[in-house]
Amino acid sequence: MKKKKVAVIGATGVAGQQFLASLSGHPFFEVTALAASERSAGKAFKDALTDASGAFRWYCQEPLDPAFAKIRVEDASKLEASKVDLVFTAVESDAAKELEPRYAKTTPVVSTASAFRYEEDVPIFIPGVNLDHDKLIAVQKKNRGWKGFVTPVPNCTTTGLAMTLKPLHDAFGVLQVLMTSMQACSGAGRSPGVIGLDILDNVIPYIPKEEEKVEKETQKILGTLVDGKVAPAPFPVSATCTRVPVLEAHTEAVYVSLSKHATVDEVKKALRDYGREFTAMKFPSCPPHLIEVLEDPFRPQPRLDRDREGGMVTSVGRVRADHALPNGIKYMLVSHNTKMGAAKGGMLVAEYLAHKNYI
Amino acid sequence: MKKKKVAVIGATGVAGQQFLASLSGHPFFEVTALAASERSAGKAFKDALTDASGAFRWYCQEPLDPAFAKIRVEDASKLEASKVDLVFTAVESDAAKELEPRYAKTTPVVSTASAFRYEEDVPIFIPGVNLDHDKLIAVQKKNRGWKGFVTPVPNCTTTGLAMTLKPLHDAFGVLQVLMTSMQACSGAGRSPGVIGLDILDNVIPYIPKEEEKVEKETQKILGTLVDGKVAPAPFPVSATCTRVPVLEAHTEAVYVSLSKHATVDEVKKALRDYGREFTAMKFPSCPPHLIEVLEDPFRPQPRLDRDREGGMVTSVGRVRADHALPNGIKYMLVSHNTKMGAAKGGMLVAEYLAHKNYI
Amino acid sequence: MKKKKVAVIGATGVAGQQFLASLSGHPFFEVTALAASERSAGKAFKDALTDASGAFRWYCQEPLDPAFAKIRVEDASKLEASKVDLVFTAVESDAAKELEPRYAKTTPVVSTASAFRYEEDVPIFIPGVNLDHDKLIAVQKKNRGWKGFVTPVPNCTTTGLAMTLKPLHDAFGVLQVLMTSMQACSGAGRSPGVIGLDILDNVIPYIPKEEEKVEKETQKILGTLVDGKVAPAPFPVSATCTRVPVLEAHTEAVYVSLSKHATVDEVKKALRDYGREFTAMKFPSCPPHLIEVLEDPFRPQPRLDRDREGGMVTSVGRVRADHALPNGIKYMLVSHNTKMGAAKGGMLVAEYLAHKNYI
Amino acid sequence: MKKKKVAVIGATGVAGQQFLASLSGHPFFEVTALAASERSAGKAFKDALTDASGAFRWYCQEPLDPAFAKIRVEDASKLEASKVDLVFTAVESDAAKELEPRYAKTTPVVSTASAFRYEEDVPIFIPGVNLDHDKLIAVQKKNRGWKGFVTPVPNCTTTGLAMTLKPLHDAFGVLQVLMTSMQACSGAGRSPGVIGLDILDNVIPYIPKEEEKVEKETQKILGTLVDGKVAPAPFPVSATCTRVPVLEAHTEAVYVSLSKHATVDEVKKALRDYGREFTAMKFPSCPPHLIEVLEDPFRPQPRLDRDREGGMVTSVGRVRADHALPNGIKYMLVSHNTKMGAAKGGMLVAEYLAHKNYI
Repeated sequence: MKKKKVAVIGATGVAGQQFLASLSGHPFFEVTALAASERSAGKAFKDALTDASGAFRWYCQEPLDPAFAKIRVEDASKLEASKVDLVFTAVESDAAKELEPRYAKTTPVVSTASAFRYEEDVPIFIPGVNLDHDKLIAVQKKNRGWKGFVTPVPNCTTTGLAMTLKPLHDAFGVLQVLMTSMQACSGAGRSPGVIGLDILDNVIPYIPKEEEKVEKETQKILGTLVDGKVAPAPFPVSATCTRVPVLEAHTEAVYVSLSKHATVDEVKKALRDYGREFTAMKFPSCPPHLIEVLEDPFRPQPRLDRDREGGMVTSVGRVRADHALPNGIKYMLVSHNTKMGAAKGGMLVAEYLAHKNYI
Repeated sequence: MKKKKVAVIGATGVAGQQFLASLSGHPFFEVTALAASERSAGKAFKDALTDASGAFRWYCQEPLDPAFAKIRVEDASKLEASKVDLVFTAVESDAAKELEPRYAKTTPVVSTASAFRYEEDVPIFIPGVNLDHDKLIAVQKKNRGWKGFVTPVPNCTTTGLAMTLKPLHDAFGVLQVLMTSMQACSGAGRSPGVIGLDILDNVIPYIPKEEEKVEKETQKILGTLVDGKVAPAPFPVSATCTRVPVLEAHTEAVYVSLSKHATVDEVKKALRDYGREFTAMKFPSCPPHLIEVLEDPFRPQPRLDRDREGGMVTSVGRVRADHALPNGIKYMLVSHNTKMGAAKGGMLVAEYLAHKNYI
Repeated sequence: MKKKKVAVIGATGVAGQQFLASLSGHPFFEVTALAASERSAGKAFKDALTDASGAFRWYCQEPLDPAFAKIRVEDASKLEASKVDLVFTAVESDAAKELEPRYAKTTPVVSTASAFRYEEDVPIFIPGVNLDHDKLIAVQKKNRGWKGFVTPVPNCTTTGLAMTLKPLHDAFGVLQVLMTSMQACSGAGRSPGVIGLDILDNVIPYIPKEEEKVEKETQKILGTLVDGKVAPAPFPVSATCTRVPVLEAHTEAVYVSLSKHATVDEVKKALRDYGREFTAMKFPSCPPHLIEVLEDPFRPQPRLDRDREGGMVTSVGRVRADHALPNGIKYMLVSHNTKMGAAKGGMLVAEYLAHKNYI
Repeated sequence: MKKKKVAVIGATGVAGQQFLASLSGHPFFEVTALAASERSAGKAFKDALTDASGAFRWYCQEPLDPAFAKIRVEDASKLEASKVDLVFTAVESDAAKELEPRYAKTTPVVSTASAFRYEEDVPIFIPGVNLDHDKLIAVQKKNRGWKGFVTPVPNCTTTGLAMTLKPLHDAFGVLQVLMTSMQACSGAGRSPGVIGLDILDNVIPYIPKEEEKVEKETQKILGTLVDGKVAPAPFPVSATCTRVPVLEAHTEAVYVSLSKHATVDEVKKALRDYGREFTAMKFPSCPPHLIEVLEDPFRPQPRLDRDREGGMVTSVGRVRADHALPNGIKYMLVSHNTKMGAAKGGMLVAEYLAHKNYI
């Protein structure tokens, strides 16, 4: 297969860099354009990452691919999207609202931004969970008269929750969901993100707009495609989202009421067995399992479990009966918010879409 | 009133020190004996706090009262309890199981240990919440043939939860409770407690036996005294207890289903108005309010709110409707686990019991 | 004494708020004006502290004085300084460079900014250390044709170092100083200051311009006034300044070479005895001691010792001989960077200047 | 080469596990025995790592080699050392004092313990720095009548310091060294190590015995072998050792006075070029460089730089002139305390010794 040409927008930011880390030596995709704000435009990418004080602002553990280092950064607002086969966008929502439709006129866009998530004709993909929502792509193209399309990944807090609810809903039916998150600082980005003075020795009990996103997105992702629209999953989701002094990975305490009784072992089995057909397709960014169920009662822990299987697996532990809800089950999960929950998850979506010839 | 003579057991530990910090200049009580393990026995208290490396192990913000510094520490297993009017115990559960009945033969015991919490004739007091359970004291004395009695305070995670559920249950009826805690390291004590290598940049999703304690104690504390026994509150409580990198104060995300609809404002009013009769009695350790409701959506935060009103108030914020539970309400709370949730809470219990002539 | 009227500039920021916390009920000073950037101008101070998300951005432990809450905030660039007797400025250096000369035309200015620190006719005061540099004030007024003057406090990292070197230089002579700091996040302010993603589980080994400031200021503060100028102290100072995951208070490891041999006990005595004449004047913001020498080898610790004596004392520990330098001594110190090292230190300077009729 | 049989003593502890992580698939060595305290003896290694609460206490990032998981743990005090070719010990100093001579009667011992470091006939090896001290091995064997020998690695804080001083001493001569460390929590181990309540939002300014070790070991390692003894390096070393809230890797601020003037560039070059002959030998655990010099002024940072080259490189940054010392140079370094500074460093020593036929 000839490699598809891709552009990364917001390349100097954390999420953009993570797209790039995933794209180094990628078998399907070849980076031919990088774009960022006007301020960086015209500079070699490596220089755009170096600030006035001499600090080199590359944030990934993986080294910067020398091939990317010398690409000249373009102004995102002037990028000619038609020259690439796929655009990855990793920009703030306001910028996405303006840029993504422009790119999508000619070219598919896989985005980490929330700008289009709640549009009726836009699917929010989680790999292995709702890729059958791909039929919305044709609807979107037709509605908007675009040759390309926009497919955002969900909010990073939604990913682990929807991933673990899906097998439970398939196997037992879900009636109610109550979730409390303990989210990592990286979820807030770096400009300025969460400042040290606020988070050291502390919990911040509120993340603006986060709970609404998680509630709405989970229902949409687990919904059913009917007549070219997603009918949201019929069960209510209630979220409390907090920030804790953790660098990476969101931890979530989940309470679920099921439609019918299931033992703890049945629940674990449903979680463990989930997604085998998808992982069997062995896409480059796909982990060996979508969900891992841990038996050590002290796991999952964000620091110890976030990098399992390249940060692409959702780690579940402490699965146990809950006696407050009908057919109640409770568990903890850890999901890497900036890997499976952001750019690397978007990369896996793109791999699937390329395989399906959407790209 | 002539001051009552009190002994503090486990005086060298964190909780014992907090009893002492509260007892410095106390208008009701006078410390006449300190006890600890055999290792410390015979030393002046100040010397017992100084370890081999020269470190002085006094952990309270308040300075050590010089009057206490020179008291000679006794061996807790040999203490003659009859020489004091009241014993405060702050020892591990195993030690409490052995020591407290011995002391209680002659003398009232207010304890931070869990050893007797689940006995049928033992009340678990939270000041202002269930002091009417004091009738159990007579039952206990009779059952056991003791002149004294044992009254433990609850687990520190129970305190804030039961404190906030009480006014909701009184006003609207509670049907179901689901709570997720983010607990401070101080809750685990210092021997060794939570080690830095485990908690930095991390969440630990499990605290052995904690969830069961919170579930059981909340039902008992909010239960009704019938025929010399506590009939537990009829609603189920489900808890998930986690540890976060916070020094002091437990944060809890609470979901409650009420028996009848209540607006957010009605809920806030019920919380705010709670306990006025009790606080009006102006006991030395009593805060001006039992519950404070904060309107800033970013509050309560453990670091910023734990020391409000001397660490004796439960701070509530983010009161909002929950759409997953019938008549659902959700909120966050912060409660100081080593002040209201431990020794200072026990001190307030003791003040009430002295006022009621139990001591 | 009739209270002096004072204005606080940069009142919405952290340092400005700390001036206000110190000014609540102050016996010498009365706040009659608050100023900040144009954005806040015209709002009641309380409203200027409340942001769009509903968060109330008052950062001090002390509550906001209700009298200040209702003062209408003025635009700092338009403030009529002549209507007050004293201006406290707590703004960035660039703003200070523009605003302070304007205010100083008519009115004394006590500043936390670095803008004027390195001017020849400007003293950098540390209370109790170099207030005899007050003779520079007349020089400054004459040079610049101002009725008022500008007196900045030093960089917060300089304060503890210069405070402890002064008695050593007086008693034994100082030949060389090598210092490594472990600085708190609060020293970097909040816009954005140090972000959580950078500082959790980390040390940042560089703070731009900090080392130069500490080296230069220490020499100036410990210098001698000769012919209307400060002759810098003759010994070299070499600093390494780092940032650690600590909220408040700077910790410094200091190596000093003395001109003549001194025992550890002599050094401790010189430190302990220092500043008694100054503290005997009992200014409102003055601590009982300027320097406290701790014998516990595990002290000083920033979290445990920063709030001693209201954050106004420099805590010293681990005084011991150093065998690498001639007549070498080494010790650790903790100094509260946003109290004695910033606004509260400036308040104490102002109290002295008012006493000396400079204000 | 036939693989040498090795035993790991203290296999259940952190350092022992790190020996095992390095030994998985090792081309020179084959693990044939594991030993620990009596408590673990007789259990399969995997079971010895699982505690009563169900927690699995394997602390390395690398997974446990299944081949090791099933080895039956022996009681260290009863191990027959003669059945292996090499013993790695990772036990407390007191245990080492007793066990190591027993093993050394028949078998070479590479140790992380301090028990024998200060004996005249015992070399303290840092790979690439002082392997020429291997001549002491024959002296030691003869002195003690052992067939084997003991070679400890240095204290983890010594490693980075001695590594960077060596090229400076070789090239320019070192006159004086003053160092302040900011050490990671992992350096204190886990029993209990540094507790969360002590280190969160804090710096602990004292680590018992650490400074003396660093000072003495650095002089011995950089000393010269004369007449079967090490003549310590002639320059004084003065250390201040502190603990900071960092998980792994020690950060050190170093001030050095050189015998002759060297420019910053000359110093960097000496550091960068160091150890090429050693790294050219390409031992399995050897990094591509012994020292890396970073130009970004914000580096090295312990979290970002500790895992460079497998945690085996010493990262140096902020090399600059110091004006307080004669021919002064100052720099920062980061060294991984539990990799190069402990078991992995010991592994590299063992690889060298095997190559030289000492094993």
